[in-house]
Amino acid sequence: MHKYKNISDPVIRRLPRYYRFLGELLDKGVERISSRELSDKMGFTASQIRQDLNCFGGFGQQGYGYCVKSLYNEIAHILGLDHSYKAILIGAGNLGRAVATHMSFEKRGFKLIGIFDNDKNKIGQTIRDIQVSDLDNLEQFCTENKTDVAIFCVPKTATPEIAERLHKLGIKNYWNFSHYDLAVHYDDIIVENVHLNDSLMTLCYKISDANDKPEDEQ
Amino acid sequence: MHKYKNISDPVIRRLPRYYRFLGELLDKGVERISSRELSDKMGFTASQIRQDLNCFGGFGQQGYGYCVKSLYNEIAHILGLDHSYKAILIGAGNLGRAVATHMSFEKRGFKLIGIFDNDKNKIGQTIRDIQVSDLDNLEQFCTENKTDVAIFCVPKTATPEIAERLHKLGIKNYWNFSHYDLAVHYDDIIVENVHLNDSLMTLCYKISDANDKPEDEQ
Repeated sequence: MHKYKNISDPVIRRLPRYYRFLGELLDKGVERISSRELSDKMGFTASQIRQDLNCFGGFGQQGYGYCVKSLYNEIAHILGLDHSYKAILIGAGNLGRAVATHMSFEKRGFKLIGIFDNDKNKIGQTIRDIQVSDLDNLEQFCTENKTDVAIFCVPKTATPEIAERLHKLGIKNYWNFSHYDLAVHYDDIIVENVHLNDSLMTLCYKISDANDKPEDEQ
Repeated sequence: MHKYKNISDPVIRRLPRYYRFLGELLDKGVERISSRELSDKMGFTASQIRQDLNCFGGFGQQGYGYCVKSLYNEIAHILGLDHSYKAILIGAGNLGRAVATHMSFEKRGFKLIGIFDNDKNKIGQTIRDIQVSDLDNLEQFCTENKTDVAIFCVPKTATPEIAERLHKLGIKNYWNFSHYDLAVHYDDIIVENVHLNDSLMTLCYKISDANDKPEDEQ
């Protein structure tokens, strides 16, 4: 049960960064750190960091700073990383293969238990010690293996039909790499989107905008 | 030269979604659409959409709605998609390979002109008609081929040294998939981050938070 409620979305989105940085400090044997030092390393202002971490109670001590290990563990608990949510990945193409092999699911609160595709050439292949299953077996697999999360690495056009099948199975947590906006179509789901095309277009805007500015504005 | 200045970051981040949705409407032969219809399709409120698009002048006409094609073209222009920024990709592992093969760079204002790795087994391989080059040739390549953007698909530990080399070459636009926070270390760069681990941890938080809530809150 979480001790903390009503944490704002921007704070939540900063938590993984705090967690990563504190993890690095732990690896280096750092036991405590001031908000100013954290600020220098993370690019947030010291007051921002104090505000954020105050959401979770009094980790900081005047003149002492933060105990790295307890703050690290607390943020891990807040993020729910001590869970092991069972995840399946849909789509064993380049992107799905990269996500499956690249991510440390176990360290992020998840366990990858299945990979699915409808391509006969991919079915049976082994990715990260998991054999790619036929998408036709999705219902049977998810019924036999209580599945919490689905990861969409399929083209946008393939997403609606698969989402409908998963939703019927009661699987309502999605990590969505497809450009199909699931949240528009279902109001009872949890979805985290990774829209690479949107990210690339945002970069294009930033570059164009900077180049369009006169020198004295740059 | 952009006609529009001082567009807020949230609006900028919504532009690619507008662009995607309008593109789909064009494909379906839709010529005009009201902010209400856009709202239903996109999950933004109609007034939000009117506010956003008013940043770019009077596309909407009372009782007519928006002309899909002109709005689509204008947003493409605002995003700078009519550019062809030369990009190189660093890291031909699973993630780099997926990004290289998965993305339609040309449609997003970029042209992928080179892929680099320091792994002798990867150098010489062909990905998306591009032969993977030895990272040792980075300086020579970027000098011979005016490079605008670098895409980091290397581990966090490998990023600082490569970033330093690119920065020295005057390449200061980055699409960053590594978990090295470039913006903390350089103040004269443009960077768009894709932090997959942060995204996965955010999903873990959302799921944990929802599961911790009593039924009546869900």
